[in-house]
Amino acid sequence: MASGSTRVVPLGGLGEVGKNLMVVECDDGIVLIDSGLAFPRDEHLGVDLVLPDYEYLRERRDEIRAVLLTHGHEDHVGGLPYLMREIDIPEVWATRLTLGLVKSKLDEHGLLRAAELVEIDPEKGAVELGPYRAEFIRMAHSIPDSVAVALETPGGLLVATGDYKIDHTPVDGFRTDLGKLAELGNRGVDLLLGDSTNAERPGVTESERTVGEVFRHLIPQRDGRVLIASFASNVHRVQQAIDVAAETGRKVCLVGRSLRKNVNIARNLGYLDVSDELIVKPDELDLLRPAETMILCTGSQGEPMSALTRMAYRDHPHVAIEEGDTVIISAKPVPGNELRVHDTINRLAKSGAEVLHQEIAPVHVSGHGNAEEIRTILALLRPRNVMPVHGEFRMLAAQARLARDAGIPADHIVLAENGSVVELRSGIARLVGQLDVGSTFVDGLGVGDVQDVALRDRRHLSEDGVLIVVATIGSQNGREIAPPEVISRGFAESEPLLEEARLEAERTIAECLAQNMTELKLLQEHIHDNVGRLVSERTGRRPMILPVVVEV
Amino acid sequence: MASGSTRVVPLGGLGEVGKNLMVVECDDGIVLIDSGLAFPRDEHLGVDLVLPDYEYLRERRDEIRAVLLTHGHEDHVGGLPYLMREIDIPEVWATRLTLGLVKSKLDEHGLLRAAELVEIDPEKGAVELGPYRAEFIRMAHSIPDSVAVALETPGGLLVATGDYKIDHTPVDGFRTDLGKLAELGNRGVDLLLGDSTNAERPGVTESERTVGEVFRHLIPQRDGRVLIASFASNVHRVQQAIDVAAETGRKVCLVGRSLRKNVNIARNLGYLDVSDELIVKPDELDLLRPAETMILCTGSQGEPMSALTRMAYRDHPHVAIEEGDTVIISAKPVPGNELRVHDTINRLAKSGAEVLHQEIAPVHVSGHGNAEEIRTILALLRPRNVMPVHGEFRMLAAQARLARDAGIPADHIVLAENGSVVELRSGIARLVGQLDVGSTFVDGLGVGDVQDVALRDRRHLSEDGVLIVVATIGSQNGREIAPPEVISRGFAESEPLLEEARLEAERTIAECLAQNMTELKLLQEHIHDNVGRLVSERTGRRPMILPVVVEV
Repeated sequence: MASGSTRVVPLGGLGEVGKNLMVVECDDGIVLIDSGLAFPRDEHLGVDLVLPDYEYLRERRDEIRAVLLTHGHEDHVGGLPYLMREIDIPEVWATRLTLGLVKSKLDEHGLLRAAELVEIDPEKGAVELGPYRAEFIRMAHSIPDSVAVALETPGGLLVATGDYKIDHTPVDGFRTDLGKLAELGNRGVDLLLGDSTNAERPGVTESERTVGEVFRHLIPQRDGRVLIASFASNVHRVQQAIDVAAETGRKVCLVGRSLRKNVNIARNLGYLDVSDELIVKPDELDLLRPAETMILCTGSQGEPMSALTRMAYRDHPHVAIEEGDTVIISAKPVPGNELRVHDTINRLAKSGAEVLHQEIAPVHVSGHGNAEEIRTILALLRPRNVMPVHGEFRMLAAQARLARDAGIPADHIVLAENGSVVELRSGIARLVGQLDVGSTFVDGLGVGDVQDVALRDRRHLSEDGVLIVVATIGSQNGREIAPPEVISRGFAESEPLLEEARLEAERTIAECLAQNMTELKLLQEHIHDNVGRLVSERTGRRPMILPVVVEV
Repeated sequence: MASGSTRVVPLGGLGEVGKNLMVVECDDGIVLIDSGLAFPRDEHLGVDLVLPDYEYLRERRDEIRAVLLTHGHEDHVGGLPYLMREIDIPEVWATRLTLGLVKSKLDEHGLLRAAELVEIDPEKGAVELGPYRAEFIRMAHSIPDSVAVALETPGGLLVATGDYKIDHTPVDGFRTDLGKLAELGNRGVDLLLGDSTNAERPGVTESERTVGEVFRHLIPQRDGRVLIASFASNVHRVQQAIDVAAETGRKVCLVGRSLRKNVNIARNLGYLDVSDELIVKPDELDLLRPAETMILCTGSQGEPMSALTRMAYRDHPHVAIEEGDTVIISAKPVPGNELRVHDTINRLAKSGAEVLHQEIAPVHVSGHGNAEEIRTILALLRPRNVMPVHGEFRMLAAQARLARDAGIPADHIVLAENGSVVELRSGIARLVGQLDVGSTFVDGLGVGDVQDVALRDRRHLSEDGVLIVVATIGSQNGREIAPPEVISRGFAESEPLLEEARLEAERTIAECLAQNMTELKLLQEHIHDNVGRLVSERTGRRPMILPVVVEV
């Protein structure tokens, strides 16, 4: 058993889906596992992206030796450029495809030479990273070249699964390496950081290959064009669609910037096998009969500017949906995107397409293992301690139950959250502290300057709008110079009510001035309260009231 | 075949889920089928309820003979009080339970005596309604006492299914009356208005009874308390939960106003069989052991003020979630509510409960028939024309495909939308016009005064907030009196940027005044454009810019 101690601090990904970032720390240095971002939720009004709070890392910037990336999804690598803009990262380790995707990202941010990019070969043995020894284990997932990380640390052997499923028939032939996991289990794993995304779901997730079989069954039945929308990074899904196109005499057109980019990277690196003759450009589509056409596109989440959404709204420069088209949405809406996806489906149906989606046809499978797969991993690794990661609390709690079922004592199961400091020492993992970590919002060009108060204001504005009262007071005599004006936006304004509000403001000012109350702050407070009360009584609504008193 | 003509005008429920209201009209009068409301979508910022646009009915107020209600769900009866506040409705027809629920609603609005309430007995024969003869057919659904309506009209025989599934083993024994539907089919149905909600889904919906079987299997395994959240109106679900409580030695506590109200109505009218000894009050819960307790509650949609949400957030006066509790969320999130329901589940899990919900356990079934059930109805009724109703376009289109499969010619299938005028004459239904119908928003105390422009403003405000620029100009000399002020809300404000915006406003005003441009509108436009450009360049954001120029 190791004799030192190791601290594990999740800065993201616990109690949420997204922005995974795990700090592994001992006295001689830090390695990070993953560096993801999250997409904003409804309450993050106007926010574009959400990043982890990097403050903990800023304070330890000189101790960071490397970032290890488990796979190329945004929630695991998307935060890397933002992290690297702030903090020097000496080395970034990733498998070949992940590295290809990351390079293109870093290039866009002008950061291509900011770190040494080191390729992980999971078939090779352990590598030294300062005080750590790292091994990488192939895991099947919805993007090729995913790995788990095994880290020998001063506090013990730690295994972070990354995202995974146990797919016994993966499209690229690279199975989750159960043999290597078993070997680690035999050596003795002290702490498992295990993916919890599907821990609540019973049974097993179906193989990615089943989606290809569904394509193979569905597509030959169609006389019209077939459009397939999926995640741009799901190379296996794209490969299977393209294979069926080739088998059924269809040419393939790729529509959507991120899809074309990812397909290029995957082809160049040998992860996607497509002959050049199969691919047509959008402007060549008109030369093909519908039954000779397959269009692969982005937009499976109903994103407003994506290819599929624009096609659905007849706003795409090259492709318009036609009667007889079949659209397969080969993805599941990320929670919160359901209505947008439904809107897209309705628009597509209005344009005459038949739309097959995961609610009504088996055109998608998850990339994450269900409960029985997690049980298998627990059985192979037999970890002394388990800390569920990746997921909302309900998912983490579900993995904790699975660990208990596997015979791990309750006090060896750590239900941590973002900012928890978990110490691994003498074979026992325990919570030793809790940092106050938040999120950093990227909005427009600014990173981190949108604060909670701005979001609260946006929420208030969004509910009942705003009512602005402008009054002018003479600075010499404390007299009202001009009658107040009232302006409203987003508030269901009726002229008589606005006039009533104006009169109430005028009355309030006169009353205040009669009592020699000329302090602007007090005046504004009185206008705010009186006008607010009037509006609420008349309408039952509470717009934001903004009194502006100008001294002239 | 009928020799006259009938017009069918849907004012709600087509191209959407909710606010079902169908106008059936001939020269001698109008009957309405259902009078529902809808719940606001995300983009309806701050709106409480959505109603159909009643303008078409206002113009024909003297022709309305009756409203026929198919069942007691809000999307079929919830709009009735609002309709009756505006328009005299001589008669409201509904089955006994529906009438019980509607009475309580009308009572709250002081409208109990505003119409004659007539009880439908589906076992009885046809009734005369002016120029129409109506028959009612029992249909199984997720609320008892649901019916379809068959209307003999001058234009032909019309059947509106209401909401239904074909449940061969309904909890109350009242099956969808296939015999009567077959008899109508044999007589000759001219137009079917068929529920499309689940038309996309293959196969059949499972019987409501299967949920009771799941309760019967799950609940005896639990040593702790069991909480079940479901729709307050799902009397069958409540009956099954209570039956299992009785069988397993648990007392039942009802928590949540709408649940208690609906259970009272259903018990009083004989739709729910519960012995008094089984029910305990919330303040008696402490006297029971956890294994003797079942709590039925509202909140299955994660509604902010509902019982389950308040329990989850430890904000409920009587019940707090404890370690060892099992919470069964026996409902499906209405699209758009997913994140709220997930938040509630996470909170419940954090408080120590195990949460079973429809994503991970078979604790809910739909109240609507899937494709094979719709095919059965089509086979029984053999309608000459089909007009799919109740649902988003994709659902209507799916029922249209099922009708085509059933051998109905494409030109006898009417894909209508809200405001479509469909004429049934000589056995053929066709679209003869399109009204411009919108929605009416209920917001606070006001009905209909929130307009689209207010919603657009709220959306804009919610995205980047608001920046207000106040300037004062001397009315005599056209000189600036005081330097402009800049106030922002919901905009990620930095002091230097606000100062820069202020200076830009000052510069703009000086420039305009130097050119003798003193017209307030023009001045405001220039301030708006220049400050907006500056902010967008500096931050990439576009807050609403509100310039206020006061002449003093």
